[in-house]
Amino acid sequence: MTRKIKETLRQDHGSRLKKCLFRLVPLLETLQNYTRFDFISDMIAGTTVGLTMLPQSIAYAALAGLTPQCGLNSAFVGVFVYLFFGTTREVFIGPSSLMAILTYEYTKDLTNDHVILLTFICGCVELAMSLLRLGFLVELISVPVSSGFTAATSIIIVVSQLKGLLGISYKASNFLDNFVQIAQRLPQAHYGDVLVGVTGCVSLLFLRKLKDFSSVNKKSKIVSKIFWFLSTGRNALIVLIFSSIAHYYKTTTNKVPFTLSKGANGGLPRLELPPFETHMNNRTIPLKEMVQDLGAGVFIIPIVSVLANISIAKAFANGGMVRATQEMFTLGICNIANSLFQAMPSCGAFTRSAVASASGIRTSVANLYSGAVVMLGLHFLSPYFQYIPRSTLSAVLICACIFLIETDLVPLLWKENKMNLFTFLITIALSLCFGVEIGLLIGVVCDACYLLYLWARPDMVLEFQDTVTNPYILVRPNMGFFFPAVNYVYSTVNKIAITKGQSRFPFVFDCVNFKRADYTAVKGLVLLSKDFQRRGQELYFINVSNSIVSFCATLKSPLKCFRDRTEMELTICGAKMDPINKTEVTVINEVANEKDNSDKDEFETLMLSKL
Amino acid sequence: MTRKIKETLRQDHGSRLKKCLFRLVPLLETLQNYTRFDFISDMIAGTTVGLTMLPQSIAYAALAGLTPQCGLNSAFVGVFVYLFFGTTREVFIGPSSLMAILTYEYTKDLTNDHVILLTFICGCVELAMSLLRLGFLVELISVPVSSGFTAATSIIIVVSQLKGLLGISYKASNFLDNFVQIAQRLPQAHYGDVLVGVTGCVSLLFLRKLKDFSSVNKKSKIVSKIFWFLSTGRNALIVLIFSSIAHYYKTTTNKVPFTLSKGANGGLPRLELPPFETHMNNRTIPLKEMVQDLGAGVFIIPIVSVLANISIAKAFANGGMVRATQEMFTLGICNIANSLFQAMPSCGAFTRSAVASASGIRTSVANLYSGAVVMLGLHFLSPYFQYIPRSTLSAVLICACIFLIETDLVPLLWKENKMNLFTFLITIALSLCFGVEIGLLIGVVCDACYLLYLWARPDMVLEFQDTVTNPYILVRPNMGFFFPAVNYVYSTVNKIAITKGQSRFPFVFDCVNFKRADYTAVKGLVLLSKDFQRRGQELYFINVSNSIVSFCATLKSPLKCFRDRTEMELTICGAKMDPINKTEVTVINEVANEKDNSDKDEFETLMLSKL
Repeated sequence: MTRKIKETLRQDHGSRLKKCLFRLVPLLETLQNYTRFDFISDMIAGTTVGLTMLPQSIAYAALAGLTPQCGLNSAFVGVFVYLFFGTTREVFIGPSSLMAILTYEYTKDLTNDHVILLTFICGCVELAMSLLRLGFLVELISVPVSSGFTAATSIIIVVSQLKGLLGISYKASNFLDNFVQIAQRLPQAHYGDVLVGVTGCVSLLFLRKLKDFSSVNKKSKIVSKIFWFLSTGRNALIVLIFSSIAHYYKTTTNKVPFTLSKGANGGLPRLELPPFETHMNNRTIPLKEMVQDLGAGVFIIPIVSVLANISIAKAFANGGMVRATQEMFTLGICNIANSLFQAMPSCGAFTRSAVASASGIRTSVANLYSGAVVMLGLHFLSPYFQYIPRSTLSAVLICACIFLIETDLVPLLWKENKMNLFTFLITIALSLCFGVEIGLLIGVVCDACYLLYLWARPDMVLEFQDTVTNPYILVRPNMGFFFPAVNYVYSTVNKIAITKGQSRFPFVFDCVNFKRADYTAVKGLVLLSKDFQRRGQELYFINVSNSIVSFCATLKSPLKCFRDRTEMELTICGAKMDPINKTEVTVINEVANEKDNSDKDEFETLMLSKL
Repeated sequence: MTRKIKETLRQDHGSRLKKCLFRLVPLLETLQNYTRFDFISDMIAGTTVGLTMLPQSIAYAALAGLTPQCGLNSAFVGVFVYLFFGTTREVFIGPSSLMAILTYEYTKDLTNDHVILLTFICGCVELAMSLLRLGFLVELISVPVSSGFTAATSIIIVVSQLKGLLGISYKASNFLDNFVQIAQRLPQAHYGDVLVGVTGCVSLLFLRKLKDFSSVNKKSKIVSKIFWFLSTGRNALIVLIFSSIAHYYKTTTNKVPFTLSKGANGGLPRLELPPFETHMNNRTIPLKEMVQDLGAGVFIIPIVSVLANISIAKAFANGGMVRATQEMFTLGICNIANSLFQAMPSCGAFTRSAVASASGIRTSVANLYSGAVVMLGLHFLSPYFQYIPRSTLSAVLICACIFLIETDLVPLLWKENKMNLFTFLITIALSLCFGVEIGLLIGVVCDACYLLYLWARPDMVLEFQDTVTNPYILVRPNMGFFFPAVNYVYSTVNKIAITKGQSRFPFVFDCVNFKRADYTAVKGLVLLSKDFQRRGQELYFINVSNSIVSFCATLKSPLKCFRDRTEMELTICGAKMDPINKTEVTVINEVANEKDNSDKDEFETLMLSKL
């Protein structure tokens, strides 16, 4: 018998260990039921994503003001790590527009070594966040705030890429300065670049539209497939076409009529520790100073990357279950690994996930093939990266970003929830004026203030129990009762109770929603009770929880409590009241709907007519 | 007819103007029904408070590291202003221990001019707060936080006054440094000072106890009255006795065996503009630099003074109704006026209010008499202020402060509400370690986080409707549903729904508490609905508000809604269920009581037994 139990326990222990291991390394669970069909699907999807990643990495590196090499370096390490630890098959860790723009923001006047150190610190912070189980922080960011944040980032990217499209160069000190600079330098625009850029944009938008045709056109399956493929691979396609044109010009006339991007060094990166000191302006800069130079970026970038990654994972996850803490852990490992290969900070990208999902991905093994494709590209295609026109990259970025601005949210939220619209717009406005991190922070604070405000101004239900013998007035806050509401509830009840005519009725305070005994709130009730006592007016409490009764007893200020409404009615009216007699009215507060206004008038009329 | 209406309107207009004026200058309303009894009561109470204020002002000025003159200057202007605009008769504006310790904190290395400028800025900030109607900010400070803040301030005062009691001198850099300094300098303690100080403390504590005897001793009314008077006027009494001793020594032997305080210049202060530049270390310091020197003090001190004033007003107000915005306005005017008379920042003090209340104050006209007494004192008693022993002042301050530390809150909150205890203790600890303003801020943030946490982890009620034909499971979040809860509610419902055995039941989501359509929350419900659809499991929504229905319609993701539970039951079960069949269980979350734990086990057992 004992042996049996012990055996069961051992088995149980074993299975728990296995479960833990499976939770830590989801790949193990995936491989348990890996089929040939999974294998083929993953290979197709992984390769497609890999091919998308190559031009994307170069474009995002340009966005961050870095060499193409730096972008490419960050495109293969993350996927290999995510293969083991990732929870969502559609997520591919690599360079992303958000990370690029933020990296640019914090390292624009610094060295490449700063970027690599930033990647390392990001990884460490993400890892620390996962160990501290800070996954819940992400829950504090509402959709309007994260949409506003994304929209602002996209606008900043679009505006900052206009110079590439126009073939001009400048350094803007802030978002608005971009417009001033562009207006000043517009006459210097380079026609070759404008032509390539605009053609690129138009083609990309057209190819994007093709996808809609592919789903409409159900006659021919092959045409539909081709349309879909052209649409999905449009970035790689446009880059390929314009690079070929550049290559043609270079080899035939040795003069290209538009600006090309910086070439990549070629080959795979070296494996080495991230730089813990660097040289700038003929001076050695120690680690401490480097970190100071990076400023708030060492916190903002990891937080934003976690947020972005989890948002993407949530959008694609099967059943929507995302283990935020595990995602943070994985992202941390990815970025630490990235920093060993001279890469920029990375996280998942919505575009890659969309491609993977559309390509029929089955499991996260697809990461393996993406990584392999990027490595092969790095090895064999590097010499050709220099032929990519600068304005083509700008066109790719602009066309990717403009669709991240959810303009349709404005009419939707205007109609349905103006408070949400406010946070959406304030996040965008502050992000554009003072930087995306300020916008995000103030957006979250606005949301939090609104929720605190709800605690401070609870809806209150007023009932006038109209009987000939013993009428009474019942007051019930419609939610929990905590310190911010004490002043409001206290003065509202007192105000109603001393209104001419109402002071002769007994009052009943319903504590049904007041479960957790907050000290301030309990003191408020005691004070209220004393005020009624001083006025010689009756005040009863019903549905009082044990914790509040005991709290008042400890304070030596017992309240006149009844267990519930029936008991109270039996005692003060001598009989249980017929609910038909009740007139229930909600007292407005500022948050409530307009509807309640009429209720208030009604209540006032009613009160006046009764008294 | 028209004339009649117009007349009525004019009258109405006139009475509204009158009401407004009465609200702005409560004195006018008071004077309307002022009786001879009020007059006498106010004169007695006002004079008593004035006599209390004289030694208090000198002590608090010493606490702030200022000359006695500076404290006395601030003791008569405020009361005259408050006479007109104040809302609470028991409040007397003047120097207070809290203001003194904070003023010391921000001006310890600065000039007297800085202090006067600080008073002026405080007044302006308070006035601005009242014009911006920021009275509600005070509601965000819960009793545990304000008690913690008061306790920490008191501890700091007590520790900082020990040096006066011991007759030693040092400058401490922070709270803990005080102990180190005292320990080092203990051998230098001056026996005369220690003797005077300890005698003072013991006498004060004894006189304080007398009040209890006065209420117990009901035999002789006169003895009782004398006891009460000695107890209430103990500060003035002790100061008088020890000053007389000092005066005796000085006149007879010309040598006093203990340290005396700095003398006052004597006479009434000049009326002049606050200094907008000053001289320090042989350098002229312009206004901008002076403000920079004052640092965060220019915000912290007005906020704290408003908080303190409103807390005191609340504690004494008749019916507890305090018009926070009017109090801010009055305090602002008081401090601006104070700054014209070279005074330190001031606000109400609990001690004075207690004295006023105990002396039978009737209206705020009492302020007039207090002000007059202080002015007379300034004019005639100034030459004698130099005879007040330094350690007597320390004794007065220590004995006033130790009773502001509510040690009984610790066992009370330990028993009733550990979260409140946590904020109380964290506020004290951080106030002592990093300054009272940091403690206050973190205390408020802790409280706010707790309230946000409640939104994030709502209690959820689970009902298993157990019928033979069509059982279903009902889920109802027990409070409003906003973005921080989306992830939790979403994964909890999904987790319950896919648990082995429960996946075959239809689910019902009760939106009765979900009134305000938050975009994130609506999206969460839509996502949940899609998950159920993908699993082929039914999910119905009941009690859905119109705003949510319209929101989902705009999102083109209609939910399967029923108006209420009966309609849903009629449709999916074919008949209304008998409520007796219901088994109601609350799903725990981390905030809930331990009681719920057993419920959870019960529910799990139940679920397992059913399935």
